[in-house]
Amino acid sequence: MLRDDPAAKSLVAGDTIFSEGDPGEFAFLVIDGEIELSLAGEALETVSVGGIFGEMALIDHSPRSATARATTDAKVVPIDQKRFLYLLQNTPFFAVEVMHVMANRLRRMDARAKSV
Amino acid sequence: MLRDDPAAKSLVAGDTIFSEGDPGEFAFLVIDGEIELSLAGEALETVSVGGIFGEMALIDHSPRSATARATTDAKVVPIDQKRFLYLLQNTPFFAVEVMHVMANRLRRMDARAKSV
Repeated sequence: MLRDDPAAKSLVAGDTIFSEGDPGEFAFLVIDGEIELSLAGEALETVSVGGIFGEMALIDHSPRSATARATTDAKVVPIDQKRFLYLLQNTPFFAVEVMHVMANRLRRMDARAKSV
Repeated sequence: MLRDDPAAKSLVAGDTIFSEGDPGEFAFLVIDGEIELSLAGEALETVSVGGIFGEMALIDHSPRSATARATTDAKVVPIDQKRFLYLLQNTPFFAVEVMHVMANRLRRMDARAKSV
């Protein structure tokens, strides 16, 4: 359902989707290309097709904690709060997926914290 | 349902629930007292009544990424994989709660990464 979404946004390599500190109203599903997440100018992660990013704004309504930028031409589907809750309630697998993404990010940050 | 659980474990201040690197089969709900999560000997967070910890082992089946220790006498309810999935599927609010916990941890780690 999300993959054919008419609301999908086309991006050109180099486009910034959001910046650290921005208010955030959408998570995004990557349906084409690659998106880089960075923190204070340092790359944290590359999100590719099928991946989700920006979900934290929907969970805790805080400003963006990272910057998201297309590193190739790309296409993303915005997921607003209403759809996010719908997906959580109706597709438990989606909840587990989002948690997986967050767990991976946490483990990466933990490893980083230990290495400094 | 979880708060009256017969499987609740009583802990004495100073008890270690799990250590970084351990295999993990349970998340835990705190129903009394306080649990400290630490990484490489440094305190990351205190989880108090109503809080959840250890959820990452259920999500991605990796070893424990932190050490959990009771800092007061405490009581925790273990949540195994089966119950975790049951809660996710039947109480969407639980999914949002777990994501909240993870989002808070991620933001804290992000702030840490920026400060070093």
